[in-house]
Amino acid sequence: MPDFAKRMDCMAGSAAIIRGLFGAMNDPETISFGGGAPASEALPVEQLREIAADVLRRDSRGVEALQYGPVQGLKQLREIVAGTLLAPRGIAVDPDDVLIVNGGLETMNLLCQVFINPGDVILCESPTFVHCVEIFEMFEAKCIGCRTDDLGLDPEDVEQKILQYRPKMVYVIPTFQNPTGRTLPADRRERLAELGSRYDVIILEDDPYRDLRYSGEELRPIRSFDRTGHTVLANSFSKIFSPGSRLGYVYADHGIIEKLVDVKTATNSHTSMLPQILCAEFFARGFYEEHLKKLCAIHRERRDAMMAALEKNMPEGTRWVFPDGGLFSWVELPGDIDTTELLKEAAAYRVAFIAGAGFFVGNTGEGKNCMRISYGNVTPEKIEIGMKRLGDLIRSKL
Amino acid sequence: MPDFAKRMDCMAGSAAIIRGLFGAMNDPETISFGGGAPASEALPVEQLREIAADVLRRDSRGVEALQYGPVQGLKQLREIVAGTLLAPRGIAVDPDDVLIVNGGLETMNLLCQVFINPGDVILCESPTFVHCVEIFEMFEAKCIGCRTDDLGLDPEDVEQKILQYRPKMVYVIPTFQNPTGRTLPADRRERLAELGSRYDVIILEDDPYRDLRYSGEELRPIRSFDRTGHTVLANSFSKIFSPGSRLGYVYADHGIIEKLVDVKTATNSHTSMLPQILCAEFFARGFYEEHLKKLCAIHRERRDAMMAALEKNMPEGTRWVFPDGGLFSWVELPGDIDTTELLKEAAAYRVAFIAGAGFFVGNTGEGKNCMRISYGNVTPEKIEIGMKRLGDLIRSKL
Repeated sequence: MPDFAKRMDCMAGSAAIIRGLFGAMNDPETISFGGGAPASEALPVEQLREIAADVLRRDSRGVEALQYGPVQGLKQLREIVAGTLLAPRGIAVDPDDVLIVNGGLETMNLLCQVFINPGDVILCESPTFVHCVEIFEMFEAKCIGCRTDDLGLDPEDVEQKILQYRPKMVYVIPTFQNPTGRTLPADRRERLAELGSRYDVIILEDDPYRDLRYSGEELRPIRSFDRTGHTVLANSFSKIFSPGSRLGYVYADHGIIEKLVDVKTATNSHTSMLPQILCAEFFARGFYEEHLKKLCAIHRERRDAMMAALEKNMPEGTRWVFPDGGLFSWVELPGDIDTTELLKEAAAYRVAFIAGAGFFVGNTGEGKNCMRISYGNVTPEKIEIGMKRLGDLIRSKL
Repeated sequence: MPDFAKRMDCMAGSAAIIRGLFGAMNDPETISFGGGAPASEALPVEQLREIAADVLRRDSRGVEALQYGPVQGLKQLREIVAGTLLAPRGIAVDPDDVLIVNGGLETMNLLCQVFINPGDVILCESPTFVHCVEIFEMFEAKCIGCRTDDLGLDPEDVEQKILQYRPKMVYVIPTFQNPTGRTLPADRRERLAELGSRYDVIILEDDPYRDLRYSGEELRPIRSFDRTGHTVLANSFSKIFSPGSRLGYVYADHGIIEKLVDVKTATNSHTSMLPQILCAEFFARGFYEEHLKKLCAIHRERRDAMMAALEKNMPEGTRWVFPDGGLFSWVELPGDIDTTELLKEAAAYRVAFIAGAGFFVGNTGEGKNCMRISYGNVTPEKIEIGMKRLGDLIRSKL
């Protein structure tokens, strides 16, 4: 067989991690804190059934839903992104500067197509979302981790690494970060936008969790501080509407959007039309506001259950993040427990999580005693049982 | 702004052609033979409304449709691909060697991710589908056109160019080819499979039109002749189900599928779930057989109307392909008419087509007097009117 492309070697490590993440958790008796899914109970099944019955008619939007559509995405949905989702955050957007993508992660792929040559440097948070690292490595980018603290990414370290590595891009998840659940404060957001402008670097702001806020004050996106168009705002409908619909969007300056449209054409022509129409009608018919309240209520209860369960079950010396929203907390165990090893024994306890080391680029050994804990798609009852199991397992190691 | 990646220069020419193709035809009074869409009248709107009403329930498949799904695609749909679509063509397929993609073209993108390094050579038909050339050029492949005749791609020329250029891949649309409508005979199919095996080259068989056959005998896919796993079979649900659903599939040897799954993960995680479920249920409930008959009846009538209209309206010396199926014919005008120039004047005649030159890789000047004519989404009445307009335009140039 002909040789695989060089990029397949570059992504081999992260691809193996991702395969492990998605492959491991199939035992129905296991309570998994591993995935990144929102609550299945909150998915808008009934509303979409009603909308589908209306639009899938020949005298309604049936042909539009099933025939070829525009590369850039349904205009109605781009207008909702601009008017309903971005304008209230202080970002005035022309809907023609929005591209609808096949799930939020597709933006990372398309943006790499547009900007990344092999060997280009991308600065990431340390830890960061490993799935995006896999994408960056597929494009043969060199990923460099930047220091984070309890407030998230440290702009001082970013500036120093910009000077040292001359990166093309800085990748940051500012709100309820994946994997830590931390949220970057306003002054650091402003500072990152400034760094992008000053050093001519793309700031890739990935903000899929922002609307799942259960406490604290809303913060403006990094993009709202940007004066030069260096910040690209990637977002997703996965957490606020439906992950399986694979809908996301990207907002960027027009010159970048034009190129993204070309590479979208050369990736999969356009995003599936029926999910776009269902999503647009979901907003247009006013379902979203009520849905978001329900979504936040369910996830807030789970966040609180998780915090109580951590308090109750984790051994002394354990640290964890109290997330104001989103789906994750980050747990740092005391002593020299290796969570990658721990995970192997977790199967016997019928509990799962994601080991921390995989979220750090370049096998630094950091995060060995850490884990990402997701409470999004686990009921409070199961959180209590699962965290008891996890506590038992950890204590057996001390 | 940071520089765009080098690949953006490589794809600039084909991207401009593609933008032109999709952008030009917005005047509702214009009769367009330009697009590649199947008949809107044949889209299964009513069937999908019925299925959606059933599956979008919490006690049915509502959560499955809206929650995250498997990277490789819905198992039920992969089983339908294997059992209903491939087994009757003499290809015994394990559903685990099938990957569901976001529209047939995504396969070209993913396969390039897996195999193509910058500078690698891909042999194409001359003419070939320009949209795929755009994808290949985005991956900085060097596309080389191979000779075709009235029977399609000439394997002698392919072999010679394999020896000359040592390509990674040969891209071929064997059935009702885009843009010519020609169909490759069985002996050439067998020969191509053998060339792939002998010279260790991937044969990328793109076969989206095969089920839209209106006359002649069905032919086995190239893949059915393959003994070494060098042929990768790409196909699409766009023509036989719905283009806007963006559903396609690829069948390849397991070692290739594993890599395709990794790059699919790093492209957009998975294909939208609701369209996959609707499509699988469409087959499972037995709608497909009747639908395909209707689809072929509608398109056969249009093909026949187009052949009659060509006969009636084209000047003496014009040659065209009689396609046994699919959506296209290829028209070669007499004299030195440049169809790229002709297209500019066609707007005034309110008719559109696609000029031939863009389908030849590398600006060779070939196809200057040719055009691709699509009859898929134009009613017989409009075919008659539109071809009269086109005939008037062409005669005004002679």
